[in-house]
Amino acid sequence: MRAEIITIGDELLIGQVVDTNSAWMAERLNEQGIELYQITSVHDERAHIITALDEAFGRADIILTTGGLGPTKDDITKQVLCDYFDTYLIEDPHVRAHILELYKDRPDVLNRLTATQWMVPQCAEILENRVGSAPLMVFHRSEKLLVTMPGVPYEMKIAMEEQVLPYINEQRTKDNGQRTSIIHRTLQVTGIAESALAIEIEDFEKSLPSYVHLAYLPKDGIIRLRLSGYGEASAEEMDRLFGHLKDCVAPHLIADTDDPIEVLVGNRLKQMGATIATAESCTGGKLASLLNRHAGSSAFYWGSIISYDNSVKEQLLGVPAEMIKSHGVVSEGVVCRMANAVRRQIHTDYAIATSGIAGPTGGSKEKPVGTVWIAWATPQGTTAECFHLGKLREQVTDRACTKALVGLLKILNNHSSICK
Amino acid sequence: MRAEIITIGDELLIGQVVDTNSAWMAERLNEQGIELYQITSVHDERAHIITALDEAFGRADIILTTGGLGPTKDDITKQVLCDYFDTYLIEDPHVRAHILELYKDRPDVLNRLTATQWMVPQCAEILENRVGSAPLMVFHRSEKLLVTMPGVPYEMKIAMEEQVLPYINEQRTKDNGQRTSIIHRTLQVTGIAESALAIEIEDFEKSLPSYVHLAYLPKDGIIRLRLSGYGEASAEEMDRLFGHLKDCVAPHLIADTDDPIEVLVGNRLKQMGATIATAESCTGGKLASLLNRHAGSSAFYWGSIISYDNSVKEQLLGVPAEMIKSHGVVSEGVVCRMANAVRRQIHTDYAIATSGIAGPTGGSKEKPVGTVWIAWATPQGTTAECFHLGKLREQVTDRACTKALVGLLKILNNHSSICK
Repeated sequence: MRAEIITIGDELLIGQVVDTNSAWMAERLNEQGIELYQITSVHDERAHIITALDEAFGRADIILTTGGLGPTKDDITKQVLCDYFDTYLIEDPHVRAHILELYKDRPDVLNRLTATQWMVPQCAEILENRVGSAPLMVFHRSEKLLVTMPGVPYEMKIAMEEQVLPYINEQRTKDNGQRTSIIHRTLQVTGIAESALAIEIEDFEKSLPSYVHLAYLPKDGIIRLRLSGYGEASAEEMDRLFGHLKDCVAPHLIADTDDPIEVLVGNRLKQMGATIATAESCTGGKLASLLNRHAGSSAFYWGSIISYDNSVKEQLLGVPAEMIKSHGVVSEGVVCRMANAVRRQIHTDYAIATSGIAGPTGGSKEKPVGTVWIAWATPQGTTAECFHLGKLREQVTDRACTKALVGLLKILNNHSSICK
Repeated sequence: MRAEIITIGDELLIGQVVDTNSAWMAERLNEQGIELYQITSVHDERAHIITALDEAFGRADIILTTGGLGPTKDDITKQVLCDYFDTYLIEDPHVRAHILELYKDRPDVLNRLTATQWMVPQCAEILENRVGSAPLMVFHRSEKLLVTMPGVPYEMKIAMEEQVLPYINEQRTKDNGQRTSIIHRTLQVTGIAESALAIEIEDFEKSLPSYVHLAYLPKDGIIRLRLSGYGEASAEEMDRLFGHLKDCVAPHLIADTDDPIEVLVGNRLKQMGATIATAESCTGGKLASLLNRHAGSSAFYWGSIISYDNSVKEQLLGVPAEMIKSHGVVSEGVVCRMANAVRRQIHTDYAIATSGIAGPTGGSKEKPVGTVWIAWATPQGTTAECFHLGKLREQVTDRACTKALVGLLKILNNHSSICK
């Protein structure tokens, strides 16, 4: 079973908005064994939308659209679909009641434009959009299905999880009961170049059956290796192949799941009953916000001191002004002091500190842009390492966070128990 | 002149990677007066890539591809293009010399797989990829152009800025010297619903000429209004229409540029010579990392105390344990204390504090998930406000950051000078 996504909206095509919806939808579809064949982004333009619909119906069984469903004039998806399916708008009393209830405390929203939201295509089936006014419309065309969703990410996510995926699954069961399978297994390695890794596992890769693919996804010093099995691949066969792959990359392995590095670290800390704090200069809070990004992080993440200005390093973290003067603020001594101080002040088991030159200015011949010192303070002592992480500001800080977390994960994996 | 982007890679279609490249490329193309007509994401699959190329050549003058250029087996773009343009691979001595130089200190990378990177299609023109080994290949087909770029964002960005855009502009000048124009003007408003705004500016919208479009982009409580002029629109006419639009939305206006809110705040602080610190609970460092995200932020952002655990609020920010017990940690009293304490400790002019329930757990009937208190400490005193920001963890923290920054911007715009 094959799906396609059509994202509708000029904002995507002039670069005003990054499409984060499609990746999220792709993951959900794959979990259900539905292959996402193509993503197409088109303008809020009648002819363009119609061409994209024609092409997608030619390739896929399910078409999901996002965007263009607002009450304002620039949003035309609903009207174009009316024409495409040769139908007309009627008032839907359920949608009307729902919108009136949704905005009962918002008289400013209950205006005549919002009222256009309860006019829906006569031939469409309407699913409930619990959190917004844009209609979730389902159109049938022979055996195929088109579902519209709003482009606002959190509305789309709720619609997809609560309405669209259950609806699609019900239709599939009705149609034939048959479920194809797509199985992904991902592991993560670090400390090796992509090409060198490919040579190391060349024999393994050659031995794979035609219906199992291997993909390499390098990012910020971590390479994710993904095995994907289509159709014929059974869960048992995938497990066996994945086990074999794990053996091949064992010296470099940091995880046998696709979890982001901050989740791996968080899970390990929770497992150990240990806590962490950070003292950040160049990463400026990014490391903190990664550590508390996911639900449940209060179990292990306690807090941070972001010492962007040197005065904060001196006054809140007790780094001596002379040390900054003699060694420079990007130095082993300073970053170790920062890590020890924050660990002591916030009373955690572990602490990470970063100090570096994110750029674009501030570099020198000895310490060019991209130079980052990272320290890890642990119950067993403090260690630090210097990295060179590129030239672009965002790249430097992202990579510094990854290095900091990978370094911590390695330390944690060597600490079977902690002594508080 | 019309362009299309084809992104090649299974990782996009199984949701393992979010496509941030396309939005960035779209913006650069628009700046050059090149319309991006469509973005198409396809699998690492021969037939799929070829169909996408055929369709794109049918619609656009310039096709930009990203992805599939690595040295590993899953990357097939180069070979597919060889077949598509009926050519074969030859060794390119310049690319070879460049790659040998690039990795001269990395013997682990200089292996036989990396050596395949200097084999390039005989009929392609090669542009230099300064920071990586994937070839930037240019193919000509009658008057049209196809350029390949790597999918790694920072490599793509350097390739695009240093090589691809200059190359395209040179070709255009050679061809006809003619430049069409695309002019975007964006302003930002807050404190009004999208539909209510649309009604307020209905007459203005109706009066627009056919070649000027108005678009609404709501996100986290800010609505961006974009005027886009195509072809006939002159800069003078766009300025005039934009001025008119600004007058129409004056009571809600927070900016007449498309700059993100943290840039607006940063610019205003720099202009005033003022500094800022944050004390964050539910936003967990996200606000800090927004404030120091852009180059030059050390001029105004000094540091933060991230007090995720209550012990940090008590010990580092001096919030009395009894206050937390009697009022709750998500309360006006606590958040004002946090803001005042961090402002005093880090010696800044302004400070922001956040305390809220990001969820999914921790909510109660009186304080449901999404409840966030934000305080602003200023030289003129401290104010606080309570918000209800939705149900999803990431949405709550993103919106809290936006509310915090919008609130600060309003305060700063009322402070013409500061008294330190």
